[in-house]
Amino acid sequence: MAAPSGEGGPRRGRLTTPHGRVETPAFIPVGTKATVKGVRPETLRQVGVQIVLANTFHLALRPGPEVVRDLGGLHDMMAWDGPILTDSGGYQVFSLAGLRHVTDEGVVFRSPIDGTQIRLTPEAAVSIQNALGADIIMALDVCPPYPCPREEVTEAVRRTLAWAERCRAAHRQPGQALWGIVQGGVERDLRAECAKRLVAMDFPGYAVGGVSVGEGHERLVEVLDWTLPLLPPDRPRYVMGVGAVRDVVAAVARGADLFDCVLPTRNGRNACAFTFDGPLRLRNERFLRDKRPVEEGCDCPACRRFSRGTLRHLFAAGEMLGPILVSIHNLRFYTRLFRRLREAVGAGRFDAEAQGLLDRYYQSD
Amino acid sequence: MAAPSGEGGPRRGRLTTPHGRVETPAFIPVGTKATVKGVRPETLRQVGVQIVLANTFHLALRPGPEVVRDLGGLHDMMAWDGPILTDSGGYQVFSLAGLRHVTDEGVVFRSPIDGTQIRLTPEAAVSIQNALGADIIMALDVCPPYPCPREEVTEAVRRTLAWAERCRAAHRQPGQALWGIVQGGVERDLRAECAKRLVAMDFPGYAVGGVSVGEGHERLVEVLDWTLPLLPPDRPRYVMGVGAVRDVVAAVARGADLFDCVLPTRNGRNACAFTFDGPLRLRNERFLRDKRPVEEGCDCPACRRFSRGTLRHLFAAGEMLGPILVSIHNLRFYTRLFRRLREAVGAGRFDAEAQGLLDRYYQSD
Repeated sequence: MAAPSGEGGPRRGRLTTPHGRVETPAFIPVGTKATVKGVRPETLRQVGVQIVLANTFHLALRPGPEVVRDLGGLHDMMAWDGPILTDSGGYQVFSLAGLRHVTDEGVVFRSPIDGTQIRLTPEAAVSIQNALGADIIMALDVCPPYPCPREEVTEAVRRTLAWAERCRAAHRQPGQALWGIVQGGVERDLRAECAKRLVAMDFPGYAVGGVSVGEGHERLVEVLDWTLPLLPPDRPRYVMGVGAVRDVVAAVARGADLFDCVLPTRNGRNACAFTFDGPLRLRNERFLRDKRPVEEGCDCPACRRFSRGTLRHLFAAGEMLGPILVSIHNLRFYTRLFRRLREAVGAGRFDAEAQGLLDRYYQSD
Repeated sequence: MAAPSGEGGPRRGRLTTPHGRVETPAFIPVGTKATVKGVRPETLRQVGVQIVLANTFHLALRPGPEVVRDLGGLHDMMAWDGPILTDSGGYQVFSLAGLRHVTDEGVVFRSPIDGTQIRLTPEAAVSIQNALGADIIMALDVCPPYPCPREEVTEAVRRTLAWAERCRAAHRQPGQALWGIVQGGVERDLRAECAKRLVAMDFPGYAVGGVSVGEGHERLVEVLDWTLPLLPPDRPRYVMGVGAVRDVVAAVARGADLFDCVLPTRNGRNACAFTFDGPLRLRNERFLRDKRPVEEGCDCPACRRFSRGTLRHLFAAGEMLGPILVSIHNLRFYTRLFRRLREAVGAGRFDAEAQGLLDRYYQSD
């Protein structure tokens, strides 16, 4: 991470990985099962995507880390030669897996695919991510839900810290950067303790986890206000699972660098297109004969060649091309959004840009 | 249509349309509802597709011909500036529609979308296709099933001929070429009568319809042997709905120029990849760790960057990218197949090329 500009406020930076650089703040599209749903890697490049995320949990279950390694690792599988980040699997274990049992040793759960019992320890999470071969890998954490009793959050932080230490000890691949994850729910002192103790372990990057789990915008901002200032300014700061426009803008304003979220592709598959004037629900009858592109001035392959009317037709007809095109547009929306944020930071006019952007995006709220 | 080479045997030609030329023999991918399923128009170009087909029946029901016209016509909707052919809707009325009732006037059927009663006459079929705006449009025909009592086939030919005449009278758009369709089932005299009377109407192109409806390879070849020699050598000959490799090769050998078929995309969505060594069923366990491309030497975007193992994973995981990539590969297979056939015809070595191609493709049968 190059020394970022700014002190406590919004900042620009550059993250260097074995597969290239990432200009930050940056958005990380989610490629859960080794593909950003419906979008070819050439198209990701074309719309300005710099880095993608894949989910350790899903890939560990299918096709399995050894198969990914035998197929040449995630970069070969995804046909993506840019930077890749894998999460630790922790979030999915706590949100998707059935019958889980957590001990200090790790977590045991049943596979949602075939019901087999699986044991995920910090050492296993690192070993699996070593096999997957991403540029950035994450320490195994315990992600409490929201709301959550304080004792449970305390326990989650205790285990997250112990597991972070064990992940660091288990990590053996110098080409992969292992980052720590700050947990602590909406408890200020627990967030602070977790951040300080992780920083003492000297990770090359830090994530804020356990957000975007239902706490809402105000509490998310509080958590970021408590946590981000405690992280070292020369290390990248990744806010996990956050992608709503107002959340992103608030987090960038507080010095966050990286964000992953399924919103552009999930909404794209559901005919919801992002624009700087707010989202369009393309199934709406009012678009039936609308010859305009989703967004005037957008240079994405969907806006350059397809009308809202055609996209509406494709969704009404159940055609794959609808989800494909709107996912592509939405990814382009996010890369354009982040470029605007980076340029505004660079030009010292972030606050004005952010206010203008939010006023326009949420004008109809 | 430029004067084709060959007399009675395989031939090369060039079809000129308002949206460009088609080197024949050529394959026409099917874009039923104004999209070749899962494939963007840029990609169609990239893999060498020259012309696409859209289905009048489906587009007439949804979004409706007026909406297509208001959205700029099919070329604008599909974002495809090359030649487009629309079928007449006849085939779908006789294969998909419920509760249909055929009279000399036309056919009345219930919409499979909302159950409303729809009347399709020859005049309506032309008017709808005029609104859709394809370069080549087809006369409304009656397509009998196989097998079918001779009296029914006789009646189908009688109506097909009367409707062809009415279509010709109703057609008013000089930029669109209206082609006639030869019906007649597997009855030699009916095929001959239908062909001769259509030729007397002087259409700029002719199709052989009512094939690939279950009659099998041998009877298809018989029908082509009876019919193709009766069609004028200076007009394009389009064999409708035929795409199996052995059928295509046999039809080209007999002087057919154009073919449409859903096979490349339908099979692509089902993980069945065409190769010159025969099809691969990519869900098979044996591809789990297979790092080879679907087909060595194929220059398609799937083969250049993705392994069989990755494609297998994408299908196992239910990811859209699997159907997308294998559809693209299969379209490339067909454009490469047809390029080989054209080059072999041009070089006067069609028979040897065809034999080598069939031996290799069906080696495992």
